[in-house]
Amino acid sequence: MAAETGKGGAGLSEIQSEIFQAFATYVALLMLKMMVLSYFVISERILKGQFVVREDYEGFGDPQMSKEEIRIKTASRDLYIERIRRCHRNDLENIIPFVLVAVVYILFTNPTTESAILHIRIFAAARIFHTVAYLLPLPQPCRFLAFLVGSLATISMAIRVIYEGKF
Amino acid sequence: MAAETGKGGAGLSEIQSEIFQAFATYVALLMLKMMVLSYFVISERILKGQFVVREDYEGFGDPQMSKEEIRIKTASRDLYIERIRRCHRNDLENIIPFVLVAVVYILFTNPTTESAILHIRIFAAARIFHTVAYLLPLPQPCRFLAFLVGSLATISMAIRVIYEGKF
Amino acid sequence: MAAETGKGGAGLSEIQSEIFQAFATYVALLMLKMMVLSYFVISERILKGQFVVREDYEGFGDPQMSKEEIRIKTASRDLYIERIRRCHRNDLENIIPFVLVAVVYILFTNPTTESAILHIRIFAAARIFHTVAYLLPLPQPCRFLAFLVGSLATISMAIRVIYEGKF
Repeated sequence: MAAETGKGGAGLSEIQSEIFQAFATYVALLMLKMMVLSYFVISERILKGQFVVREDYEGFGDPQMSKEEIRIKTASRDLYIERIRRCHRNDLENIIPFVLVAVVYILFTNPTTESAILHIRIFAAARIFHTVAYLLPLPQPCRFLAFLVGSLATISMAIRVIYEGKF
Repeated sequence: MAAETGKGGAGLSEIQSEIFQAFATYVALLMLKMMVLSYFVISERILKGQFVVREDYEGFGDPQMSKEEIRIKTASRDLYIERIRRCHRNDLENIIPFVLVAVVYILFTNPTTESAILHIRIFAAARIFHTVAYLLPLPQPCRFLAFLVGSLATISMAIRVIYEGKF
Repeated sequence: MAAETGKGGAGLSEIQSEIFQAFATYVALLMLKMMVLSYFVISERILKGQFVVREDYEGFGDPQMSKEEIRIKTASRDLYIERIRRCHRNDLENIIPFVLVAVVYILFTNPTTESAILHIRIFAAARIFHTVAYLLPLPQPCRFLAFLVGSLATISMAIRVIYEGKF
């Protein structure tokens, strides 16, 4: 593995340093994109008066609602809010593993700048398109292909790490 | 970006090293706080005999329950257990992105120790208060403000990274 | 903490470098294991024609289904698909915190190679067994013990970091 070629492991090579500078920006961008979904859920909940716990109705809901109305509304689901929540969960399931795999891929497999940046840009583009496809929504297989491309970028890096790895 | 000013990228500055030592402790603390919620869900499930899959009833539940009773109970939900699970998911959606954004913020934007530690402490305090506000529960907007403050700490770091970033 | 004993913080020791090389492989492996669950959910959904949003029925489902049939099927849940989704969420709640805690544990507590690799191997074995126990399923307390062992490996590292930490 890469670090073995150095003297005692320390430090990043210039190539790794260059890759990490671009990587850092994409990490921040993808995390912002993901966190925006939280605010989208909150604004939809307030606009529609559709909450999931009692104190939210008391704090943000219609003050005229009876306990029985609150109970019924809490048990119901708004389809579009559930859609945003699914989109958010899908981001968690895909973007977080990408970030962690990319870090070990950059540090331990000595990729070229081109190869690493390509993986990162393809993943970022695929996930931004995935969010658009989920929230509009676009007809399938748009969302599926966006998931697939992002997922394959991560899997490609993970397999490279395992292939060069030790257990 | 910060690393460009070094000779070939390698190594941490003394300031970064100092920040990371405090950061490490908060990461461990916030992860522990988050994982405790798993144990809280498990203990509530066992106390209330409210599980979600058949083998849990067979292993931990009342051995007298009929298949029909298990089927009905599996389909039902306990409001407080769902509340803890929502709290846990909210932690996942907020604490993990914070940790990843904070790492690239510390490594690539050369923050002062004061500024970095302030972001970290505000975030940690906000998330601990968020858990208290969700589980007691405290009246709104306590939980919303806790979410907002923690979220803004992460967004502030992410925007700084993107502002200094390259794509 | 470890880094304080170095000159100005920079670089990894040879021991840390050796640990990280093994760690990298396990991170890639555990992320792959987790991501495979996404594909398992997708294949089950397509095989059973059980989707959660309208465009999935239009793109992948039976083209003869009426809007009313789609509405009813969207509201229903397949028990085995929900099981895989729970398994996936449990991985998110456990594997991601493990990775983040392990990084700060290796960097800031100066563990021996044996101790660090032991934590990592125990965790990986426990989580792979957890997935098997959830999906077959095996009778309880198999799944609970797998969760417990993995969780204790993470908690053991987190407590070590906090014990040596500064706030």
